[in-house]
Amino acid sequence: MEKSTFYHAGCPVCNTAEQELVHLIEADKIDVVHLGEDKSKIAEAKAKGVNSVPALVTPNGNVLHINFGASMDDLVS
Amino acid sequence: MEKSTFYHAGCPVCNTAEQELVHLIEADKIDVVHLGEDKSKIAEAKAKGVNSVPALVTPNGNVLHINFGASMDDLVS
Repeated sequence: MEKSTFYHAGCPVCNTAEQELVHLIEADKIDVVHLGEDKSKIAEAKAKGVNSVPALVTPNGNVLHINFGASMDDLVS
Repeated sequence: MEKSTFYHAGCPVCNTAEQELVHLIEADKIDVVHLGEDKSKIAEAKAKGVNSVPALVTPNGNVLHINFGASMDDLVS
């Protein structure tokens, strides 16, 4: 079973979106990646088309940018 | 059981988001409202905090603006 991946950076906007989505989508169908804590995943997220966080990448590869917490450019250390 | 409501206006961005979300969230847990076809719901959506479509209003009342299809101001007839 393919999973969605939720990318976030720990910002308040991200946390609200995460709580809502993890509640709406079954937990075993979504992976959560904190780009602030795991910066090695930033390139992976960008390659998938993630421009800002929070964002949900679906099993079909579509990127759903949800509200706006931070630009990916702000996450590069 | 409380449902989420997905507001959209038939734009391509909206349609992609709808297909993804209806796939990810069980169909009986989400209502879909087409504001272009049912303009009487525009005021309701605005009152819930929807500023642009597509947007998902969760059972908790949080508004998740997903990508950007159209401003609510563009939908007023």
